[in-house]
Amino acid sequence: MKTVKAFAPATVANVCCGFDILGFAVDSPGDEVILTQKNEPGVVVKKIVGDGGRLPLEANLNTASVAVQSFLSAIDSTVGIEIELFKNLPLGSGMGSSAASAVAALVGINYLFGNKLTREELIPHAMEAERIACGSAHADNVGPSLLGGFVLVRDYHPLDVVKIPVAANLYCTLVHPQIELKTEDARRVLRPSVALKDAITQSGNTAGLMVGLMSGDTNLISRSLKDVIAEPVRSVFIPGFEAVKSEAVKAGALGCGISGSGPTMFALSGSHEIALAVGEAMQRQFLKYNLKSEVHVSRINLDGAKIIDL
Amino acid sequence: MKTVKAFAPATVANVCCGFDILGFAVDSPGDEVILTQKNEPGVVVKKIVGDGGRLPLEANLNTASVAVQSFLSAIDSTVGIEIELFKNLPLGSGMGSSAASAVAALVGINYLFGNKLTREELIPHAMEAERIACGSAHADNVGPSLLGGFVLVRDYHPLDVVKIPVAANLYCTLVHPQIELKTEDARRVLRPSVALKDAITQSGNTAGLMVGLMSGDTNLISRSLKDVIAEPVRSVFIPGFEAVKSEAVKAGALGCGISGSGPTMFALSGSHEIALAVGEAMQRQFLKYNLKSEVHVSRINLDGAKIIDL
Repeated sequence: MKTVKAFAPATVANVCCGFDILGFAVDSPGDEVILTQKNEPGVVVKKIVGDGGRLPLEANLNTASVAVQSFLSAIDSTVGIEIELFKNLPLGSGMGSSAASAVAALVGINYLFGNKLTREELIPHAMEAERIACGSAHADNVGPSLLGGFVLVRDYHPLDVVKIPVAANLYCTLVHPQIELKTEDARRVLRPSVALKDAITQSGNTAGLMVGLMSGDTNLISRSLKDVIAEPVRSVFIPGFEAVKSEAVKAGALGCGISGSGPTMFALSGSHEIALAVGEAMQRQFLKYNLKSEVHVSRINLDGAKIIDL
Repeated sequence: MKTVKAFAPATVANVCCGFDILGFAVDSPGDEVILTQKNEPGVVVKKIVGDGGRLPLEANLNTASVAVQSFLSAIDSTVGIEIELFKNLPLGSGMGSSAASAVAALVGINYLFGNKLTREELIPHAMEAERIACGSAHADNVGPSLLGGFVLVRDYHPLDVVKIPVAANLYCTLVHPQIELKTEDARRVLRPSVALKDAITQSGNTAGLMVGLMSGDTNLISRSLKDVIAEPVRSVFIPGFEAVKSEAVKAGALGCGISGSGPTMFALSGSHEIALAVGEAMQRQFLKYNLKSEVHVSRINLDGAKIIDL
């Protein structure tokens, strides 16, 4: 009987100015799956650990099984697969929780098939899972979770996902306050049009961030980590947002913003020590707004999801 | 008596997706100035060659003299300067004509003062000339004309101009049809707001262009050279725009668009031979719309304006 265990990392989508086009992966935390080949055809979610019973076990609704089904259908296989999912990422946190489950399952099933598909070829199957999880088949979480590093989603028609060759050595602080936000709600507050000058500012900062990342210019990265489109309307969902961000920068972060659609906030720093101090400062500030939070500090992940020992 | 001659290259601002934030310089054509120190204080435009008498000789209205005045005022000098301006760039063409005159004059006056200021420090003085020439102190022509290569204007408050370390080896075709467009008119047709989805598309292409330029990925450059904001409204000023663009791409160009606010169109190609063929194809197509045009093919300029032998 063939069985495999895989890990897929949490991801930060948007990255301030990179709204809807950019994401990066962290080393940890992440979700794990164990896939086991079974005799009867069909994909089954056998158990989920760590979700507090909130995720669906139905194979057509769970992101891990939907991704595996999409993969099997693409390669015309009717093999049976049993999935055990270990959720380490909180749901609705903005840390790419649904993406991580789908990506771990895909990297696992692909391994069972001798890595038949490339990482890039797995992306559309992971996007199918995202469509189930949050209503839109976006790639800015699954892209970096699969490929590692910073990933640009330049276009969807056709899909154009580019791994950015990053020279900067960066550390990420994730601070997850104990509130929950639905991606749909965070999308609903976005206005359908933006001022031309804001679109230009956002483009300029996106370009600056790319140049900074690729040339290792942390000062330019810092100047570019601004979001004039989504953050002004979405930050109202996060009590203390401005104060927490301000404390992150005071503690030495290059920049700070909303991770995905929130409520997790992320900060990027130039060293592990600074990233730790930034986490403490942000957590302390959230407490002033009566919000407990979990802090994760990690290097930027370079390789994406991986097979791990059983 | 001290005298100096300087050359400043034509520039392509906007570069499709880089609307209002990006520009690059070409090796030729460009404007030349001769500056001569004189005994009486004050900046004088002695003569202008090649403008057909259309540019003002008044020192407060000519971009070369305005730039020199701004420079002298900044370093508290009352030295007298006589300017001879040799216009090789057509006026109102979208090739950064006003910027080139100002930049050549600035590089010349700076040389006379022992290169007291850096190229970056000259930018604000060149922007003052742009304010006189077209009503807005923009930097996307003067930046690349001064610094060479591709230049990002990330922000104006405060000014943040970044020279992009480009790995791609590119050639530019400039095709200037015999119509004239005022920058103000081209700006007037821009809508004050854009659809959120277009802003996202533009940002994605800008990011893709940066990654392509810096990694030497000409295919990515080609996929990213799109403008969903300015080109759809501005291209109506250029008869045959879509057909000419289409011919450029058929002839092998990586991409094609409006140079600055037009009417000149630019194309980028991966070799000198392709860039020449692209120019022929574009010129031929313009003729079908009864428009004669001038074609310039050049390498991307790497170093910006320069002092030349008298």
